[in-house]
Amino acid sequence: MRIAIAQLNYHIGNFDANFQRMESAVQKARQSGADLICFSELAVCGYPPRDFLEFKDFIRKSMEVVNRLCALSQDIAIVVGAPTVNPEIEGKDLFNSAFVLYNCKVLHLAHKALLPNYDIFDEYRYFEPCRSFKTFELKGKRIAITICEDIWNLGNENPMYTICPMDEMIGEKPDFMLNLSASPFDHRHAADRLTVIRANVMRYGIPMFYVNCVGGQTDVLFDGGSVVFGADGRCHEELAFFEEAFAVYDLCEVSGEQGRGALPRDETRHICDALVMGIRDYFKKMGFDKAILGLSGGIDSALTAALACEALGADHVFGLMMPSPYSSRASVDDAVALADALGMKYACIPIESVFGTCNETLRPHFGNLPPDVTEENLQARIRGMLLMAFSNKYAYILLNTTNKSEMAVGYGTLYGDLCGGLAVLADVYKTQVYRLAAHINREREIIPRSSIEKPPSAELRPNQKDTDSLPPYELLDPVLQHYIEQRKGPSEIIAMGYDPEQVRRILRMVNRAEFKRFQAPPVLRVSPKSFGLGRRMPIEGKYLC
Amino acid sequence: MRIAIAQLNYHIGNFDANFQRMESAVQKARQSGADLICFSELAVCGYPPRDFLEFKDFIRKSMEVVNRLCALSQDIAIVVGAPTVNPEIEGKDLFNSAFVLYNCKVLHLAHKALLPNYDIFDEYRYFEPCRSFKTFELKGKRIAITICEDIWNLGNENPMYTICPMDEMIGEKPDFMLNLSASPFDHRHAADRLTVIRANVMRYGIPMFYVNCVGGQTDVLFDGGSVVFGADGRCHEELAFFEEAFAVYDLCEVSGEQGRGALPRDETRHICDALVMGIRDYFKKMGFDKAILGLSGGIDSALTAALACEALGADHVFGLMMPSPYSSRASVDDAVALADALGMKYACIPIESVFGTCNETLRPHFGNLPPDVTEENLQARIRGMLLMAFSNKYAYILLNTTNKSEMAVGYGTLYGDLCGGLAVLADVYKTQVYRLAAHINREREIIPRSSIEKPPSAELRPNQKDTDSLPPYELLDPVLQHYIEQRKGPSEIIAMGYDPEQVRRILRMVNRAEFKRFQAPPVLRVSPKSFGLGRRMPIEGKYLC
Repeated sequence: MRIAIAQLNYHIGNFDANFQRMESAVQKARQSGADLICFSELAVCGYPPRDFLEFKDFIRKSMEVVNRLCALSQDIAIVVGAPTVNPEIEGKDLFNSAFVLYNCKVLHLAHKALLPNYDIFDEYRYFEPCRSFKTFELKGKRIAITICEDIWNLGNENPMYTICPMDEMIGEKPDFMLNLSASPFDHRHAADRLTVIRANVMRYGIPMFYVNCVGGQTDVLFDGGSVVFGADGRCHEELAFFEEAFAVYDLCEVSGEQGRGALPRDETRHICDALVMGIRDYFKKMGFDKAILGLSGGIDSALTAALACEALGADHVFGLMMPSPYSSRASVDDAVALADALGMKYACIPIESVFGTCNETLRPHFGNLPPDVTEENLQARIRGMLLMAFSNKYAYILLNTTNKSEMAVGYGTLYGDLCGGLAVLADVYKTQVYRLAAHINREREIIPRSSIEKPPSAELRPNQKDTDSLPPYELLDPVLQHYIEQRKGPSEIIAMGYDPEQVRRILRMVNRAEFKRFQAPPVLRVSPKSFGLGRRMPIEGKYLC
Repeated sequence: MRIAIAQLNYHIGNFDANFQRMESAVQKARQSGADLICFSELAVCGYPPRDFLEFKDFIRKSMEVVNRLCALSQDIAIVVGAPTVNPEIEGKDLFNSAFVLYNCKVLHLAHKALLPNYDIFDEYRYFEPCRSFKTFELKGKRIAITICEDIWNLGNENPMYTICPMDEMIGEKPDFMLNLSASPFDHRHAADRLTVIRANVMRYGIPMFYVNCVGGQTDVLFDGGSVVFGADGRCHEELAFFEEAFAVYDLCEVSGEQGRGALPRDETRHICDALVMGIRDYFKKMGFDKAILGLSGGIDSALTAALACEALGADHVFGLMMPSPYSSRASVDDAVALADALGMKYACIPIESVFGTCNETLRPHFGNLPPDVTEENLQARIRGMLLMAFSNKYAYILLNTTNKSEMAVGYGTLYGDLCGGLAVLADVYKTQVYRLAAHINREREIIPRSSIEKPPSAELRPNQKDTDSLPPYELLDPVLQHYIEQRKGPSEIIAMGYDPEQVRRILRMVNRAEFKRFQAPPVLRVSPKSFGLGRRMPIEGKYLC
């Protein structure tokens, strides 16, 4: 039996485009003599469809795609994920399902049993869990289908679940397993995934074909990395990360035979690749093709520019330097050097005259009150306004350059440097930004050395440094990580040896900045706990602040 | 037996404040000779605590409050909602529980069984559902406790659930029911609630004491309306809406005897009261006391100003008129008349000079390109910037005045008129805005008649009218309501008789504005489907657009 796996980039709700992608994969599979082609979880509508699932019309349109695929299934089995209506009155209205279409009929229908409802996942909001399991037969082979999370409760060791779907099916002696996934990237997940798949294969002693999707869905990034494991527990082949892929395997060759094995892992490179894909897909799926961003001469905007140029092409990225009276000459020089190294266009618009007119306009109302954060924020907001004017005039989409450390403690101006259609670095801590910059510079100096080496500064008042308002990033970032990623409380973090005053100050800053993050742009997610829908905090909460 | 119910306004995570509120209610109950006092769902930590529940430290602090309450329970039973740790390894880490504390011991512990996981609710994200049920005895009376949603699957008629907790307990012959709720307001819910409670009482034939919380938690508004039903199915008494309340009842007097019965319902007044409470509580809980808003002379900003003055006092609300070259003189006059009628302070800052400097600054880069939406948005953003400058300088919080019709179709400028700490009207359709304005003017003309009667306009170019870009609100609003509240698809709405082209145009506008709403301020929720966490849509989704 020959099995094709198609790792595709779906667009949520874009049914025609999704169908066309799958149609050409079916054609390719047929040409390669495949008996079966497998697509990923909820492939027909894209993942995560969120509350679109509450529209009967959306479910109808999904089923139309299933029917169109069904018509293509003469002599080739098509396995594809789609939402289906739960025929029972009791329970949620839908199942998260996998169809097996063969000879223009539905040969088999499987539903997902383990429904993730944590972090960015809300599957219990929509889906009823499956409670009965069976395998199906195709051309003399017996096949067990699971959907994504279904293989993550092996031996019932995952405390979140009480069912292990493969345990229910193994008695029917399947010849191999198919898993349809929509498993998003984070910089730890790709390794965990192989471990879990291997453990499944070792437990059941049969091969597994694991089919993931790829591509950015605004904030949520899917890395692909679909994989085939032989019955012996060896990784036969892992498909590419961050791009579409297609491959066909002979069932009898995936066990024992030497495949290419797993791909090498490189956290920093993977994060860069994920961000580049995230930018590219956001633009493509939103129907845009040009980006603009403010270039301050600092490392964050430089890194964002480099990633944007890789994603969209340097001729589709425009940089704006907007020096204020407090900007150093060197900052503009660094920004120009960066833009030249990347080959992107730029312009320089000093904000002094707009800033001056604003101050004159406000003076009668502010009287003799001394300058304070008002005037600092004003400069940031003038920049946001100028960038948005370019965005409106030339259909540029503004990229936000805030990093995760700043976003965490609220070191940024709402409607100023927090503007943007997409926050590229807001899930990357400042200390990680340096590693990513080094990766960008691995072959030649693109990000100027001085942008990397100078002490971080917002340059909104004379001689300002980030460390005037924040602990140094080497201290800040690990505390943030314990609090945000690990969800440790103050006493647990202090017990690790951190200064109690600093810990309390940092946690207070994080919680008090909730109102800013609520209005921040969507954040490309590369960590297990990113700002956005994966982290839901009450704005008015008084906890730790 | 005498039963006290305390309808209090909790602050999420503000454990000391919550404890103090409950402590004085316990004292009052004791003085009134009560045998039992009942607080609402998750009272110790406030509802909804969201991902704070994932912090062990937060759960510990909740339990400390439970222990402090326990120490107060000599001779009086205290029934209070709190999260508790699930002792089983399998399943979610927590239960949503109700403690019965008596004589300084835990007399009984009940867990919630029906966990809402729709709209703004995410209870499956945190809680394991209860699967075993029992009543408890106090001073010779047997009592059945349920928590909020637990009474909403009467006779198993709610398709979302398969268990009916009271059915499990009624065999133990309880003398009465206690329900601890955190049931948020929407303009239909208060009536449904009485229907459900009455149906429970009729089915089980015993009285029910239903204890809700009250107060705004940023976007989510709790209306109180705690209620006592006699065994005969009559509403004995309903406590006040939108304020704290406390009452004590003799168990033997709630059935048969004539109480004050249910409160009158008035949708428009309730929405106004809810919005006033929402503004007041947001400010109080965030530690602010002064609001600013832009006064355009239009009805939306006028209504917002009137609600803010009621919430905070007119001397705590500041209005800014910011006429542009395209503003009519009449608009400023209307804004001044409104401010005078409300007794609030205001200032007028024409934006012409800042707008001029911005245009001059941009001219070298925009060349001879004709004015377009860029210059319109620029005016809106200059206003946002000036309002935020006042906000920074004087610690005003900016109130957003966008209505739900505008928010739905994206008729507003990101970082311009979409700025604000809180969106007061963004769950109120334009056609409702007129009804609310009439309510504000019920005794005297506060909102000028001309603000109400003139055709809506953004005044960002000569002779602009909303209807240049939008269908008339009388057509727009019902279509929006079918799509947003009722989740009807295009074919279903068209089948109701609406013009197909208009329907498709409106739905496309809604879906294409997702990126704006993502960055909008939190919206005071008064409808069953408000923008925010209750409506989760993919930004890059291609559905209907």
